[in-house]
Parts: sequence; structure tokens; C-alpha cells
Amino acid sequence: MTTNAPLRTVGLLGGGVIGGGWAARFALSGIDVKLYDVDPEAPRKMGEIMTNARRAYSKLTLAPLPTEGTITFAKTVEDAVTGVDFVQESLPERLELKQKVLAQASKAAAPDTVFGSSTSGLLPTEIQRDMVNPERFVVGHPFNPVYLMPLVEICGGERTSQATKDRAREVYTYIGMQPLMLSKEIDGFIADRLMEALWREALWLVNDGVATAEEIDDAMRFGPGLRWSFMGTFLIYRIAGGEPGMRHFMAQFGPALKWPWTKFMNVPELTDELLDTICAQSDAQAGTATIRELEALRDDCLVSVMQGLRGHDYAAGKTLANFEKALFGRGATPTLTLDGPVMAMERVIPADWTDYNGHTNDSRYSQLSSEASDCFFRSIGFTDAYLASGRTFYTVESHIRFLDQTHQGDKVKVMVTVASYDEKRIHLWTEIVREDGVVAATGEHLFLHVDAKSGKSSPMGTEMFDLLKPIGEAHAKLPKPVGIGRRVGEKPAK
Amino acid sequence: MTTNAPLRTVGLLGGGVIGGGWAARFALSGIDVKLYDVDPEAPRKMGEIMTNARRAYSKLTLAPLPTEGTITFAKTVEDAVTGVDFVQESLPERLELKQKVLAQASKAAAPDTVFGSSTSGLLPTEIQRDMVNPERFVVGHPFNPVYLMPLVEICGGERTSQATKDRAREVYTYIGMQPLMLSKEIDGFIADRLMEALWREALWLVNDGVATAEEIDDAMRFGPGLRWSFMGTFLIYRIAGGEPGMRHFMAQFGPALKWPWTKFMNVPELTDELLDTICAQSDAQAGTATIRELEALRDDCLVSVMQGLRGHDYAAGKTLANFEKALFGRGATPTLTLDGPVMAMERVIPADWTDYNGHTNDSRYSQLSSEASDCFFRSIGFTDAYLASGRTFYTVESHIRFLDQTHQGDKVKVMVTVASYDEKRIHLWTEIVREDGVVAATGEHLFLHVDAKSGKSSPMGTEMFDLLKPIGEAHAKLPKPVGIGRRVGEKPAK
Repeated sequence: MTTNAPLRTVGLLGGGVIGGGWAARFALSGIDVKLYDVDPEAPRKMGEIMTNARRAYSKLTLAPLPTEGTITFAKTVEDAVTGVDFVQESLPERLELKQKVLAQASKAAAPDTVFGSSTSGLLPTEIQRDMVNPERFVVGHPFNPVYLMPLVEICGGERTSQATKDRAREVYTYIGMQPLMLSKEIDGFIADRLMEALWREALWLVNDGVATAEEIDDAMRFGPGLRWSFMGTFLIYRIAGGEPGMRHFMAQFGPALKWPWTKFMNVPELTDELLDTICAQSDAQAGTATIRELEALRDDCLVSVMQGLRGHDYAAGKTLANFEKALFGRGATPTLTLDGPVMAMERVIPADWTDYNGHTNDSRYSQLSSEASDCFFRSIGFTDAYLASGRTFYTVESHIRFLDQTHQGDKVKVMVTVASYDEKRIHLWTEIVREDGVVAATGEHLFLHVDAKSGKSSPMGTEMFDLLKPIGEAHAKLPKPVGIGRRVGEKPAK
Repeated sequence: MTTNAPLRTVGLLGGGVIGGGWAARFALSGIDVKLYDVDPEAPRKMGEIMTNARRAYSKLTLAPLPTEGTITFAKTVEDAVTGVDFVQESLPERLELKQKVLAQASKAAAPDTVFGSSTSGLLPTEIQRDMVNPERFVVGHPFNPVYLMPLVEICGGERTSQATKDRAREVYTYIGMQPLMLSKEIDGFIADRLMEALWREALWLVNDGVATAEEIDDAMRFGPGLRWSFMGTFLIYRIAGGEPGMRHFMAQFGPALKWPWTKFMNVPELTDELLDTICAQSDAQAGTATIRELEALRDDCLVSVMQGLRGHDYAAGKTLANFEKALFGRGATPTLTLDGPVMAMERVIPADWTDYNGHTNDSRYSQLSSEASDCFFRSIGFTDAYLASGRTFYTVESHIRFLDQTHQGDKVKVMVTVASYDEKRIHLWTEIVREDGVVAATGEHLFLHVDAKSGKSSPMGTEMFDLLKPIGEAHAKLPKPVGIGRRVGEKPAK
């Protein structure tokens, strides 16, 4: 089994909500996708998922996304798994169907192509039964929406090789996921067992008229669900136990396990009546929101939660931070254009940048301009390694002009011009340009190259200056930007 | 029963993790607290909780927090409930103890003082049994940490009056919580039943050696827990059902409820061996982190998740947004000092403002300066009502000088001076000052008063100009700020 094999093209069997989510995730990570699905509506559905996924990724990260992979529709199972570096199966949850299609696909695929399965709970030993080279099969169980949710549970069957598990972990990590390696094969794996335990109790609460669907959801999202987004049940309880820790918590709350706090000694019968109740309550809860609107809201919230956690380099925030680091490593730095400003960065204005005036808050233009400057610095060799060598840039002063407005969802690019420079100083001019060509804001920054240890200015490395000099010289010949060098409140030049 | 009664002082019975959390939440909302606890260590523990809570609130909101309420320790139960507007009981989960103390307390309290109980699952009908005026008793079940978690489950007993429930809802809403009104009295209420169902399944997974505590927590926080922070199980499943909605989802996944995906037909025996396993795994998971460090991390993550959701005005983010609006309404606007700069805003630098240089990112000073300008505007009458009248301020240009550094946890204040003004324009000068008196950055902004409909400049309301004029005239007599009116890159004046 080849690990560290390149990942350029994947084959997908099944293109529903899960398969389509995989396609979006792979494509947005720059990987070409061959997708097989019998549903004639699959291309339309795939297009809708891609729209959602592109929208989410435009807000998810400032890191440079690779050129999007292409998604093509394979006419046969054989076509989908030929000439690909990895296969992911996301067929309906019917064991016989999965067995049959995987037997057929594994005959056609190259003998060492690894197959992942999205099954929610079927046993890998059973799914892999009829495959050619079954050792290259493993479960890689994702969560909806696949293009955003980090978790993927990796679970091998009796005949799965360690190399297969390693390869799956490598593939999933490459596309920004958080693999969880299961040591035991078990129905439902881990997360679905926990979800189902909670879900069954929720159904009982509805069945018994204790609470509605909406009340149960509120009890989760305003309560324990908030905490579960970054710490799980064990760590949260440990903290609740205070200084004495877990043993104290168990001594205090262990007995409650035998109190009548749950009702899961049997399974609620999904009678027509209970189904009607659940569906009516679900309709009431969703109100007038369409499924697309709910999906967009869900994705926006997921993005914000992950970005919020990223600031603490913890839980799903750490997964995102690592993915971004990898993207920076893989991504192209801005091209240093000599005949005009450098296109340093593109970005879509996120929802939470809107202020009380209904458009982007002024301080966000400072942020855009500052981040674009960082992008420019990367292109002259301001890398992690350079920073680690104890040299950095400090901003001395900034001036921003607010010329027009941008709104949530607007795509802007930031153009950077070197206004002046020497070995210790860079004076940059930025323009934040909307898609219609209107300059929404301009920025002007003076940066000092600094020895981080002493905090004093110091000459930049010659390898950096050698990259800066030609662009600085070329930009000096460009027309002087209109609005540069202004004092706040200065009358405009006639 | 008085609703809309003022809330100036509350009495707390029990000052452990939960009672102390209540004390912190009330005090930070400007309410005085009388706390009764038999533990001689209670004051020390309370101090630690307040330290955590102050730290969290300094990051939670930009809204003006009221002057902190005082926390005093009552010597007797009677003292704690006398002369207070509300009582919250957070004694250990022993029914007889709660019954006894509440009987005693209800004799001493004014007859219409409402009592809330923090019980996790005991029945209100039983707890209220021996009280004087039992109709003023209601369960208000919070979640740890009480000073941050929005959810409070309100559940009455057989003798609880509607007015009591209304009063409890009013009190909890006032301190920024999200009350969930339960219609049926049930052991464990709603959230704890869901938590316990999941927890029991988690214990089985450990018991059977399927997964460790850390793996289970990872399965939650990288997976379903992320989603549960803003949508509950019903809405998430509805979305998974796609266009056909809930009925489709139930048809597709309902049968799985009968598959062997959970193991909760009985209760795992908490043998010494299982306890040892759980505690050892919990120790391994926590690593070298102390409980204080874990608490701080938990609080930081909660703050970031809630702030992230606030941008979408959804779930706990909406609760926070509403609380902030209320705080703005209640809070003092900056005092318009004439003999010097206006102290517009204080703020503690949050962890996620740190950039690769290890100190506050430059664009955050723009944000601080911009927000302080908004605070200043509020003090000259730029209220929600003013904004709703179709008049607002647009920023024309800004200039920031970065003079020194700040770090996570630093407290800064922002001083605002009116540099110049007329009916349509305000030119503000700001100084971001550390606690040691060092000016870390200065800002300069030109604002235009605008008719929001036309987007054109317009004269401000006379009531606003009448507030601005005297301060503008007085500030004109102050020494000219050093560094004002600079162009980027201009040589410093000798």
C-alpha cells in the first residue's frame, strides 16, 4: 500500500448529501473529482452543494485556496475508480448494495487504490467481504456538512491493513479534517452512538409530551451543546469536579446515573402519531426558513464557531489553524508584478464585519490592508522561518481613506504598491477594490524592519532586500497614487 | 407576587461552584449579593470564581458593564434572605437538606420574595413542600459556568404560581440568561436527561474498551458537538433530510433506532475498576493543565463561540446580543469632560488579538479607536433612536500611530479629544493608554454626519450639536496633541 502517494484525483461512488459534500471538500482542496451516481439529478444537486461550499470557504479562511479541482461525472463505477489516487464510497446505507458495488469497483481499480467508506454504522468487516484486495478498504465516516465538519472516524475491518488506515488518515488530513482512529470495530462507531443515545432520549421527551422539538433543541444549544463544541463530556465533567478532579465528580454525580433521569430502557415506537407530532414540531421550529437558508445559517455558524476556537488554537480551531498553515505552505504567494500594483489578496466580506450602518465597519479596512501587507511581505520572503530567525516587521503608522462601501458577500481584492523603501523601512500603499472596480478604501502603512529581540530597527536580510529592490524601483516609476500622503482632514487637491 | 420589582440585592443560599457562579453573574450585572455558605473556605473560593468571571466578562462584551455589585457573606440563612429582591438556592443535591433550609429561609424572607432553586433534577413539588408561601418557589436550573452559560431551565412545582415563574424569567433575563420554560415537571428536566443519556453511553464505551475518555471527547468536539453549539438535534437532522424535510429523515434513519448502535438497556456498574479506568484516562487527557487553566480555556472558548454566533444574531449569540443591547440601555455613557480628554472606553486585550509578533495586531488599534469614537458619539446622543431616525456617521479617513505594544490581558483605556468640529464634521483624536500610563497608540478620525438614505452629508441634529459644541470649544483650548495631523512617513517634528 502506498502512503505519501500524491493526491490529485479521487473517485467518488455516490453523490448525495454526503458524497456531494466529499466532492466539494476535495475540489476546494484543489483535487479533481470523478463522481458516479445513478441519480439523473446528481449534477444539479452537486451544483447546489458546491454553491454552499464555495460560500462557506470564502469566509472560512484567509489562507490561499488552491485552484479548485474539477468535478466530472463518471458514467460507470469502473470509470469513477480508474486512474484515481483514492476512492470514497457514500452509497445508501444498505449492506448488500455496498458489498456489490465495492466488489465491482475493486475489480476495476488499481490494486493499491485505497477505498474509504462513509457508512454511518455498518461494520467494515462486512462491507469489505467481497472486494478484490479487501485490505485496502477502511471506513472513513464523515459528518454533515462534509465540506466543513472536521471529524472523520477511521475504522478498519478484520482484513484492513495498517497501511490503508495510514493512507486514509493522510488523505483526510490533507483536506483539513480531523481523523479519529478507532481501535475497535463497533456498530455506529463512537459519535453516532453518542448522538443516538441523546436522540432516543429526545424522542422520548416528545413522545411523552414533556417538551417540543424546539424546546429540546434550545436546551442543547443554549446549554450543554455550547460547551460540547470545544470540550467533550469527560473534560467538562472533570472541570465541574473542581480541584479534586474526576474521582470527586464521579463520587458526587455517579449515583445520579441510577436515578430516573432518562428513559432509555426500551425504544420508542415510531408510530404514525409520534411521527406526525415530530414533523409538525419540526415545521413549527423551522418557521418560514427554507432548507437552503437553514443550510447557509448552519454553515455560517460553523465557520464562526471554528474561527472563534482558532483564536485559542484549541479543538476544531486547532484543526482549522493547521489546515491554514498547510494551505499557506501549498499556496502561491502573490506574484510580484513590476508594471503595476501587486494583487496581494482576495477576500469575501464576512457577515460579522457589518456594523450599525449596515456595511463593513471601518476598522475592517485596516484589517484588510494590514493582512494584504502581510501577504506582500510573504512574497518577498517573510516566511515562518524568517520570523523564527528573530526578524520581523512592526507597523509604525497607518492611514486609511474610506471612499465607498462594501457589504457582506462582496468580493474584494487588495492591490499593494511600494511607495518607498530602504533596508529598514517599507512604505506601502494599498487599494481595496470591489468586483465592480470601485476602490472602497485605500491604506497607507509605514513598516519598520525590526530585530525582535532588541525591538530596535535593523536592516532586512539581503535575500529579502534583493527581492524588494526591483519591485520598489519599478513601482517608483508608476504614477503617484491619488490620496497618498494625506493628513486627516486635509482638503482634497484640486 | 410582584413582577417588574427592582433587582438590586439578591440572597444566595450555597456558595459552591454553582452558587459562586450565580454570585459572580449577579455582581457583574451590578446587583449586590448576600451569600450564605457553611464552608469556611467559601470566601476564598468565591474570590477565585470572581477572578475567572471578571476575566471572562472583560472579553465577553464591549457593552458598558455596570458598577460591580458587592458580595457580602451572610452569617445566617435568615440574614441572607432578608432585605433582598430574589433568592437563589444552590445547596448540595440532598432533598431533605433543601427542604429544611428553604422552610427556615421562607419563614424569614418577605412573603413575596421569589425563591429559585439550582437543583439539577430534584422535583420542585418535593423541594417546596415545607416552605412558607410555597407558591413563590420555582426551579431555575443553570449550567456551569453559571456566569457565562445562557441556559436556565425554569420549572414550577404543583404549588408554584405563574407570577413566580414570570418573576424568575424576568430576573434571569435581566442578567443575560436564556430562560427555557418547562411545561411538565420531570426528574432531570430536559438538558440533564439529554446529557445523561449521552454520558451513560460514553461510560459504556469506556467500560467495554471501545474508546478512551479523550477519544470520546474528540468524537464530540470535532463532530456533533460543533453543530450542537447553535442548532439542536432536531433541526440538524431536519437539514440532513434535505428538501423533503423531517419526515424523509425519519423514514431514512428511524429504523437505525432499532439497530444495535447504543448499549443503554441497563446501567453500567461503577466498579472500582471502571472508576480507576475513567480517572486514569481523564488524567491523561488533562495532561499537565491545572483546573484553573482548564477553566480559563473553557471560558475563553465559550466567549469566542458566543461572540462568533452573535455575528449571526442566532442561538446563544442572540442571547448575548440582546444582553448587550440591554447593557447599552442601562449603562452610563462616557462623561463629557471639558478640562481634558474624554475617557471613552476601557477594555482588556483579548487573547485572539495577538499576531505573529506576540503582541496586539495593528488593525486592533484601529478597532479600539473606532469603538471609542462610537462610545463618544453615544455620549452626545448618538443612540439607537437617533440611528433609527435615518442619521448616522460615516468615517472619512483614519490615521493610527503605533507607539508601543500591548499584550493579551492588558487593560487599556481610550481617551478621546475633539480636534475640530462643525455641524457636518467631527475630527477626533484618540489615545490608547495602558495601565502604566504609556500611550500604546494614537488615532485620528474624520467623521461625516450623513443622511443614511441619500448617503450625503447632512447637519447633525441641534440637540446633538448643542452637546458637542461646548466640549469642542473646551477641547480647542487644550494643548495640541503631539503627533496630530501627520502624513504617513513624515519626519517627526524636532
